[in-house]
Amino acid sequence: MKYIAIIGYGVVGGGITAVIEANKEQIKRTVHDDVEVKYILDLRDFPDSPYADRVVHEITPILEDESVELVCETMGGSHPAYEFSVQCMEAGKSVVTSNKEVVANFGDKLLRCAKENGVSYLFEASVGGGIPVIRSINTALAQDNITKIRGIVNGTTNYILTKMKNEGRDFADVLAEAQELGYAERDPAADIDAIDAKRKIIILTALATGVLLDDADVYAGTLRTVTQDDIKAAARLDAELKLLACANIGDSIEAFACPMIVPHTNPISHISDVYNGISVASDVTGDIMYYGRGAGRLPTAGAVVADVCAVLSGAAKYEYVPEFKKADGTTKQAKPFDKIEFTYYIRANCSKVDLADKLEAACDSVKIISEEGGIVEAVAGKMTAKTMSDLLPDAVAIRILD
Amino acid sequence: MKYIAIIGYGVVGGGITAVIEANKEQIKRTVHDDVEVKYILDLRDFPDSPYADRVVHEITPILEDESVELVCETMGGSHPAYEFSVQCMEAGKSVVTSNKEVVANFGDKLLRCAKENGVSYLFEASVGGGIPVIRSINTALAQDNITKIRGIVNGTTNYILTKMKNEGRDFADVLAEAQELGYAERDPAADIDAIDAKRKIIILTALATGVLLDDADVYAGTLRTVTQDDIKAAARLDAELKLLACANIGDSIEAFACPMIVPHTNPISHISDVYNGISVASDVTGDIMYYGRGAGRLPTAGAVVADVCAVLSGAAKYEYVPEFKKADGTTKQAKPFDKIEFTYYIRANCSKVDLADKLEAACDSVKIISEEGGIVEAVAGKMTAKTMSDLLPDAVAIRILD
Repeated sequence: MKYIAIIGYGVVGGGITAVIEANKEQIKRTVHDDVEVKYILDLRDFPDSPYADRVVHEITPILEDESVELVCETMGGSHPAYEFSVQCMEAGKSVVTSNKEVVANFGDKLLRCAKENGVSYLFEASVGGGIPVIRSINTALAQDNITKIRGIVNGTTNYILTKMKNEGRDFADVLAEAQELGYAERDPAADIDAIDAKRKIIILTALATGVLLDDADVYAGTLRTVTQDDIKAAARLDAELKLLACANIGDSIEAFACPMIVPHTNPISHISDVYNGISVASDVTGDIMYYGRGAGRLPTAGAVVADVCAVLSGAAKYEYVPEFKKADGTTKQAKPFDKIEFTYYIRANCSKVDLADKLEAACDSVKIISEEGGIVEAVAGKMTAKTMSDLLPDAVAIRILD
Repeated sequence: MKYIAIIGYGVVGGGITAVIEANKEQIKRTVHDDVEVKYILDLRDFPDSPYADRVVHEITPILEDESVELVCETMGGSHPAYEFSVQCMEAGKSVVTSNKEVVANFGDKLLRCAKENGVSYLFEASVGGGIPVIRSINTALAQDNITKIRGIVNGTTNYILTKMKNEGRDFADVLAEAQELGYAERDPAADIDAIDAKRKIIILTALATGVLLDDADVYAGTLRTVTQDDIKAAARLDAELKLLACANIGDSIEAFACPMIVPHTNPISHISDVYNGISVASDVTGDIMYYGRGAGRLPTAGAVVADVCAVLSGAAKYEYVPEFKKADGTTKQAKPFDKIEFTYYIRANCSKVDLADKLEAACDSVKIISEEGGIVEAVAGKMTAKTMSDLLPDAVAIRILD
């Protein structure tokens, strides 16, 4: 019998006990033993749960029980998730997590702590829910140099954008409905201001480069300003408006998360509803894309359990996980967002001639695409965000994915 | 230094030496040592290659050299690939392969041989080229029960169908061009008669169920009969015509590879050109799809090298790979193809009333979609292939993916 503990018994934590119970035999194929949840740490009690007698309110019994080999951290947030994870690893227990915030903020320290204590720290469920992108980057692409990552990594906002497109409704209206249905949080900022997407691209970039970028070095563009006009413009460009998290990896790292126009020729444009998609380009393998349920109780719990299996089978010890390191003189550096150049879709309240003149002075490629009722639309590039806003402070400008 | 050998120095074999040379440092991160190709077994010599002095024409020097830990089998075909692989494993060497034919035909024996000799037999590159679907099924979905697999797993035919659609050209014409360009083989039967796709669905099904189906138990439907009319009909149904390899896993296994009409609501319908896509549905994780380059020198070689890294790092010993077993009284059985029911697109040279009458007598759901110039089109289901052809022996009938 292998014993594990869960800290944070919310949606994902509850999914873990469900998966371990339902798919006992499948798990045994990999682990070659039964897996049992011995402790559940939560502030609450769960008197009606079959696990009621395993609930504890402090970390100490878990730390002191040597039979517990592994702890699933599914509490979310930075603190005390970080401290609990460190304590568990110092007590010789591996930790697996679905918590993107703690990995994006403290992944370097947590991986170092795992190494120092001879245990594993795995976080497959932190990006893309049930999509096995992290282990895949670490194993299938181990021999590759990754050059580009593009992801639709936030299901809530992808659902909102899909609804806006299909039903012609406004952002605020669809958001309110999503909140009512429980698809969006009461405080939706982490989703709609791209904070969640930013955390995920920080993690993916760290896997590809070893560099754990600072939160401040990755731009997050909000979805709050997106209108039906923008969505219709994307459709006219044979494209979709998506909240995209991107990294371009060269001598420096360009990483950002913001609404972008994605041409239909890019398969990621076809990912709709709550689904996530992550594409990775690398020198040997070329383009790969992963698609699946980026959130939800069972898919996310399944990804945690896959990590549990990797640890308890012994495989995790041999799996390659890069060390994460904050950028310094020895690593690649983040390119400041105001230095990154984009092609823009532009909608401005001026004359065609005026717009063309201004844009042609600022960039190489300018294409006026429509003029009607005093509104001119253009596609122009490449420009930095600063050039763009200095030039046309009142225009709508949306970045287009190359 | 870790030594390996390559048997079969064609396109993929050559790609392996190229990847190992170019991405030495990346590989070292995983393997923690340098990897060197010590022998290349091929019937030919390669006097201009930097590896000219490592070329051997017999397997014996490889078998006898104890420093060779692993052999990459990239020769293709069943024989002598099977015999060589067995000999290598009996000599204590792990074998990794890109050879779908030998895995589909002898995967059960080869995995047993690996187990008996305490070595690994891995075949990531045998399905989906650079797409890491096999390791992902074995690791990320280890805790899942897989219920459905759908794949566009043959790049050549997907390229032909994409060209037919985009350029309105006939099958024979596009095939001839693809042969000229080297995208299709001189003898194209394995691709266009779905033999290659059948081998790949046999392998994927074995990973999901442990049952290695017999070649004779998996239907392969040719693409030779596909016309522009069929492609246009799919477009009118808001769908694409694709060569699909499928498995439905329940009490029995329905496995087949044939041209099918795939609705645009299914993301696999958007996979075009030489790209491959494989979707897997399972009880915990839900729907996942993998997309990428299903063939080509570097992507396929990269997948072989990923397996090399898994073996040489020590991870492969702990990775779960199911035992493959031929169907028998203790396993799930293949459902005979003539018992599998499908929804069909039907185009017949008769009257609307006649067609409706016949179909309504045979199945529950019948929808006449057009009648023009004596040609009637319908969508009807569910029927077996036998019911369909008994009913309307001269009609065009194409299966529709649910």
